Amino acid sequence: MTNNQDYAVRYVQPVNDILVDRYGTDHGLTSSQSSIINHIMMHRTIRDFTHEEVLESDITAAIAAAQSAATSSHLQSWSVIRISDRQHKSAVNRLCGNQGQIDTAPLMLVWLADQSRNFAISEEEGTSNDAFDYFETSMLGIIDASMAAQNAALAFEALGYGTCFIGAVRNNAEKLASLLKLPDRCIPVAGLVIGRPALRNNTDIKPRLPQRVVVHEETYRIAQRDEISAYDQVMKHFQSKQWMASVNWSSKVAVRLSTKASLDGRDRYMTFMRSANAGVL
Amino acid sequence: MTNNQDYAVRYVQPVNDILVDRYGTDHGLTSSQSSIINHIMMHRTIRDFTHEEVLESDITAAIAAAQSAATSSHLQSWSVIRISDRQHKSAVNRLCGNQGQIDTAPLMLVWLADQSRNFAISEEEGTSNDAFDYFETSMLGIIDASMAAQNAALAFEALGYGTCFIGAVRNNAEKLASLLKLPDRCIPVAGLVIGRPALRNNTDIKPRLPQRVVVHEETYRIAQRDEISAYDQVMKHFQSKQWMASVNWSSKVAVRLSTKASLDGRDRYMTFMRSANAGVL
Repeated sequence: MTNNQDYAVRYVQPVNDILVDRYGTDHGLTSSQSSIINHIMMHRTIRDFTHEEVLESDITAAIAAAQSAATSSHLQSWSVIRISDRQHKSAVNRLCGNQGQIDTAPLMLVWLADQSRNFAISEEEGTSNDAFDYFETSMLGIIDASMAAQNAALAFEALGYGTCFIGAVRNNAEKLASLLKLPDRCIPVAGLVIGRPALRNNTDIKPRLPQRVVVHEETYRIAQRDEISAYDQVMKHFQSKQWMASVNWSSKVAVRLSTKASLDGRDRYMTFMRSANAGVL
Repeated sequence: MTNNQDYAVRYVQPVNDILVDRYGTDHGLTSSQSSIINHIMMHRTIRDFTHEEVLESDITAAIAAAQSAATSSHLQSWSVIRISDRQHKSAVNRLCGNQGQIDTAPLMLVWLADQSRNFAISEEEGTSNDAFDYFETSMLGIIDASMAAQNAALAFEALGYGTCFIGAVRNNAEKLASLLKLPDRCIPVAGLVIGRPALRNNTDIKPRLPQRVVVHEETYRIAQRDEISAYDQVMKHFQSKQWMASVNWSSKVAVRLSTKASLDGRDRYMTFMRSANAGVL
């Protein structure tokens, strides 16, 4: 199936059918229809890529999409590093848990919360720069970078690529910062690998928690245990449909967030931020 | 102009023309074309809304779009609060610097990095939960929430709404958390107000830094002063076209990030995170 055919199917599919896939069951939701929303809802992570390169004009489009996201106070507190040199990418991968998708993807982008550029501007302007000591300056860079990265992912998907976010750029942040020659106040937030999906990647849309669990009316409502259990069942059904090993979602969450060791080195991230002079106060 | 007409124009516009608007000048970039990328690139912030309500089916679509973003380790570490009760929204606004766009928008969403749900799951499962003490668990919630919010913004825009992100939900985070009854380990990341754009909001696309300044090849390259100065000129030209007061972008950046006071209370955010038992180690 060519990308164009894939897309023709994608955009005429009734959105309420996509909703059933997205939640793994029919919650009786009624959604407005738009080809853009269909595109967004059809997202799935791709971890297997062909050897085809990513076109320069496609990268230009994705970066322009990334920069089109809102940016706090127009500060544009982020940067991105393109990594496509194979040896360099392998070195990066060694710090990111040696993941197959980093190895096979022709392009990796590392999204950075970057206040180093604004700090240089501040020094040039000769103003006080006490604000850079506070966590807020890192926070807004992390938010800016995340929103930019999400726009880029959608743009790549619109051009027929598959993507996979890589949280493991935070596993060995200090060493990665050194390898990528990051200046002070510039910290890795997330990686994104991009490539043409290999055909064997015909995975379904992965179900999410019901809207009533993540959306709260006016004030926060604590989720009931039976709502979570019902979602565990939805995920079990999805796993069996996909011929995946059956793993209880709740148990997986608990294990993933159990010990310091389960963070794969990311427990040192705040220490790294401190050493990089990123705002932590 | 109806939304449909607006959209018909938007999607047939050559992408290279939009690029010139997005960068405020012709950098000679060549971009791939896609109606989805056009949509993303045409983003502009809207701060003036009509009284028209946001339809339930549109909110459902935007939330499903938000939940369709990638989520770190499938942990779904975020929540969102819908605020549309006028009195309640005013109370929220009082903690967010009393902004006109919060006042006039019929709907405000507050995006939360939320590990409280996963913490409850972890307690139920009876596993160790040391990992929740580390900043990484807050970090991945902040990234998840930001990417989800960006998807929602694009979805609302696709349905003809205008949006404005509200960083000021972090100005008085402790009081806001109390007003919204947030449990421990649940922290406000960003607000988003949504409404039908008032006609007088016919603003142009706001130029961004050149791609060569934010994109780095293989390793980080420090931006040159003349690249920043050239962008200051681009912004001056944009301001004069838009009949806006002329403000030097670099000077604005420096002032915005100068003193603790310029953070409008967000200097207390890390203290708030600590008091909310959000991971800070």
